[in-house]
Amino acid sequence: MKASSLRRWLPWLEWGRHYDRQTAAGDALAALIVTLLLIPQSLAYAMLAGLPPAAGLYASMLPLLAYALFGSSRTLAVGPVAVVSLMTAAALQPLFPAGSAEYAGAALLLALLSGGLLCGMALLRLGFIANFLSHPVISGFISGAALLIVLGQLAPLLGIAAAGATLGQLLPALARGLPASHGPTLLLGVGCLVLLFWARRGLPPLLQRCGLDQAWAGNLSRAVPVLAMILATGAVWLWQLDERGVRVVGSIAAGLPAPSLPPLDLELARQLLPAALLISLVGFVESMAVAQTLAARRRQRIEPDSELLGLGAANLAAAFSGGLPVTGGIARSQVNFEAGARTPMAGVFSAVGIALGALLLAPLLQRLPQAALAAIIVVAVWGLIDLRGLARTWRYSRQDGAAQAATLAAVLLLGVETGIVLGVGLSLLLFLWRTSRPHIAVVGQVPGSEHFRNVERFQVIESPSVLSLRVDESLYFPNARYLEDRVAALVAARPQVRHLVLMCPGINLIDASALESLEAIAERLCAAGVQLHLSEVKGPVMDQLGRSDFLQRFGGQVFVSHYQALRQLDPLSTRRALQAGR
Amino acid sequence: MKASSLRRWLPWLEWGRHYDRQTAAGDALAALIVTLLLIPQSLAYAMLAGLPPAAGLYASMLPLLAYALFGSSRTLAVGPVAVVSLMTAAALQPLFPAGSAEYAGAALLLALLSGGLLCGMALLRLGFIANFLSHPVISGFISGAALLIVLGQLAPLLGIAAAGATLGQLLPALARGLPASHGPTLLLGVGCLVLLFWARRGLPPLLQRCGLDQAWAGNLSRAVPVLAMILATGAVWLWQLDERGVRVVGSIAAGLPAPSLPPLDLELARQLLPAALLISLVGFVESMAVAQTLAARRRQRIEPDSELLGLGAANLAAAFSGGLPVTGGIARSQVNFEAGARTPMAGVFSAVGIALGALLLAPLLQRLPQAALAAIIVVAVWGLIDLRGLARTWRYSRQDGAAQAATLAAVLLLGVETGIVLGVGLSLLLFLWRTSRPHIAVVGQVPGSEHFRNVERFQVIESPSVLSLRVDESLYFPNARYLEDRVAALVAARPQVRHLVLMCPGINLIDASALESLEAIAERLCAAGVQLHLSEVKGPVMDQLGRSDFLQRFGGQVFVSHYQALRQLDPLSTRRALQAGR
Repeated sequence: MKASSLRRWLPWLEWGRHYDRQTAAGDALAALIVTLLLIPQSLAYAMLAGLPPAAGLYASMLPLLAYALFGSSRTLAVGPVAVVSLMTAAALQPLFPAGSAEYAGAALLLALLSGGLLCGMALLRLGFIANFLSHPVISGFISGAALLIVLGQLAPLLGIAAAGATLGQLLPALARGLPASHGPTLLLGVGCLVLLFWARRGLPPLLQRCGLDQAWAGNLSRAVPVLAMILATGAVWLWQLDERGVRVVGSIAAGLPAPSLPPLDLELARQLLPAALLISLVGFVESMAVAQTLAARRRQRIEPDSELLGLGAANLAAAFSGGLPVTGGIARSQVNFEAGARTPMAGVFSAVGIALGALLLAPLLQRLPQAALAAIIVVAVWGLIDLRGLARTWRYSRQDGAAQAATLAAVLLLGVETGIVLGVGLSLLLFLWRTSRPHIAVVGQVPGSEHFRNVERFQVIESPSVLSLRVDESLYFPNARYLEDRVAALVAARPQVRHLVLMCPGINLIDASALESLEAIAERLCAAGVQLHLSEVKGPVMDQLGRSDFLQRFGGQVFVSHYQALRQLDPLSTRRALQAGR
Repeated sequence: MKASSLRRWLPWLEWGRHYDRQTAAGDALAALIVTLLLIPQSLAYAMLAGLPPAAGLYASMLPLLAYALFGSSRTLAVGPVAVVSLMTAAALQPLFPAGSAEYAGAALLLALLSGGLLCGMALLRLGFIANFLSHPVISGFISGAALLIVLGQLAPLLGIAAAGATLGQLLPALARGLPASHGPTLLLGVGCLVLLFWARRGLPPLLQRCGLDQAWAGNLSRAVPVLAMILATGAVWLWQLDERGVRVVGSIAAGLPAPSLPPLDLELARQLLPAALLISLVGFVESMAVAQTLAARRRQRIEPDSELLGLGAANLAAAFSGGLPVTGGIARSQVNFEAGARTPMAGVFSAVGIALGALLLAPLLQRLPQAALAAIIVVAVWGLIDLRGLARTWRYSRQDGAAQAATLAAVLLLGVETGIVLGVGLSLLLFLWRTSRPHIAVVGQVPGSEHFRNVERFQVIESPSVLSLRVDESLYFPNARYLEDRVAALVAARPQVRHLVLMCPGINLIDASALESLEAIAERLCAAGVQLHLSEVKGPVMDQLGRSDFLQRFGGQVFVSHYQALRQLDPLSTRRALQAGR
């Protein structure tokens, strides 16, 4: 293996060479702030995934080290993420009761499958598969998932039991549970919500007025979720609220993760595979978007294949250390970047921070109220609900807007998995429909010139016996039949036509289906007494056509310029048109 | 409804007005020949579908009338077709034992669903969905299906029982059954095979030498399958072969179809829906290809949406008259056309012919040996096995060839349904991969001119501070991220660049995902100290961009010509390049 290729797969060979004390200081500070943000979030997202809180902490240790080894982004912060946790819950809840050992094992298997798929895609260079997910679909999906998450967290905030994977299950369950809502829990939860929302908007300006600079004001306000955790736990301890019915996290086996082995159940793996694929793709797309944005600010590059490998390694690490599926978090990575992280060492330091936190906090966590975690989740995903984005897309393009709205509605009404599959199907259909109508123009000669332009936009002269068509796009199977249709319609409407010249300057590729269509067109035209010709075919396309017998069999000529074709096939009217403008 | 739109959905309003005796004579002759071809084929394909032979006859009566009412092709011959019958068997055999009443009912439901889907697609104008099926996939699928059919017919030819939906099931079953093969059946079957293959190749020249013209020689040789049926039945009757173990069709309730009602079982319908969709699409694509070829010879037009409606109506008719799923047959339509059919009245006459045949033949059919039907099937589908086509595709394009080979292999090894789904998935993946790399060129100024060309192909001058990129394709979600990657890589490699101008003459559309990418590009470039500009944006694209706030927010300018952009952003080097060539 060459050194350059080795550096491609192990990016730390590159940045590790120049690592110095100053960089380390930046990384360490960023890691501290990310740790303060990550501890409450990792606990909360594990709860969202239906897992014990310790799984969230475990998923924030080894996976961060694994990503630092293989990932190409210098500042991506990996760990449990809201949407992926929701997808994990959606995949596992139909199979096992939440909280059971089978459920936790299946979560590990999901992480293993997801990691395997990501690594496999990296080795096969299949990163382009993420292109299946169009922006409107991702956006509608994220909004829908965030809405479901917020609604789902109403249950722990109200102190009631109500679960459901769709709006149709959640809303009635919430309505039924509402009369039984638990006052002290509600008070705690709302208190946390108010504190957290205020910390986002109101705290940074206040701190700045107190003399802190903007960066430090932002950093400090990001530690508020930890503060909320401590305050809520304190309140429970002080007033013994856990004995008055406030649900708490309970005794957890925090500390350092023991090596774990996902259950190697082939049948279960087969069942989880589609969910693992969706989780991998969604996680990868989200992660890439934030990684690219951050990398570009420092003119760094993100290699999609290295990213796949980095995320894959992180998920494998999660699978073998008792975690859950992970990916790069949007907000968390931004915090990491802004707090001054320069290299993935920040991730390594964060992992150490989480490990220390887990050791120190374990006794505290026992009395942490679930309502506080629910409030942390609600505030964290609130910003993901982007209904204004939907309006913006709709204004820009009715079709894209409809795809986005349909995805959002499908996520809410049918659940996350069906929602994203429907969205992807719809956007592929839309794409296929758009590309199935290539831009084809009937062209005529501009009087007094050798140029040919669209007859619908310019005053040009058409030859009565030669039909000139300019194809502006590559020809492949989704649009090949449209070309057949158009040619058939145009020739049927022009009984005097004896020659058809396809002008091909915009064709970069003709696939086997389009070649078949061209052969069918030539044959049908021939049967109708019309000869097909080509003009201005690009070199690579000519080479490819040469590998079939089309050029020998179609009976027409290939002209270097369209003018030359017309001059030979209809000399009289071409000469007349050339003189017309003079 | 306007008259033109009514004529669009009821094409006989058009051709019916000019119908005269001469046209009727042509139609009647063609109908006679098609009837002679269709009677044995309809019996055989019903057997292939696992249904009683009468179903094949029924599917060749009312469906032909229904197609004549709504279809837009003047010469398409509708009825049971080999590949569709195989797909019917593949869909039903896992659910019910062949020959049972439930099986026959499920076949009706399949025809109902298929008809409903086709009509629905017609009304929603979804004909473009057929574009999902690329030519290599269709071709590989047809070859694989034909191979499976031929292998499957070896069992009745050998007089043994061996069935299977895949090569892995069929070959061992045949090998196990081989020792038990039945001599008289084999003799009858091989006799029919020899007669039928000879009739294809050897008979027409012989008849021509006897003084018949080419058309009549062809027409007569097409009646040979009926002759084979009669001869085989005669042999059974003469030597009482049915009592010596030669399997015969047995007593059938031929005659005219009684109205039937498919079982309205929602759960069964849900199970059959995917198969119905595949059958509809495959049938539609095959039908369209032959209809277009024939229509073009007489400069007629095929309306995809009318075709959908015509085929949908034909399947609904089959569902309510005891038939099976139908579509337009390739060979049969060609025969119809060549024998002189001018209008769909030929189909009406054929339906009458089949009805008469059913009434007269019923007693005869009782002793028709199954081996003769198997021979008729083998000869009819032999021509569909196109391995040379596979080699041709492979030579033309490795990727398309691989898709075709994979589809063929998947059909053989995994069955028709899995095969075509895999093929479609693969070709979509291939398409996405191809379109995910739009043609983007770094361009520079041609010395002494105002033109800009690809730096890799021409001797041009690049500005050190302005990067010029020409995008040659429309931007939508499959290729939007590639543009982000390319821009990031190019800018990362050119630290002195301060402006990036995207030259957009080849962009016909920017979808919402691509807009998002452009915004991300602009933002990332801005963070890196580079300003994005656009040049040569087409009118409709400018209009669409105007519906978002991109043009206000991206901070750059939109130049009418690329030269103008360079003259303003880097006047010095642009002027120098302009003078360089002079």
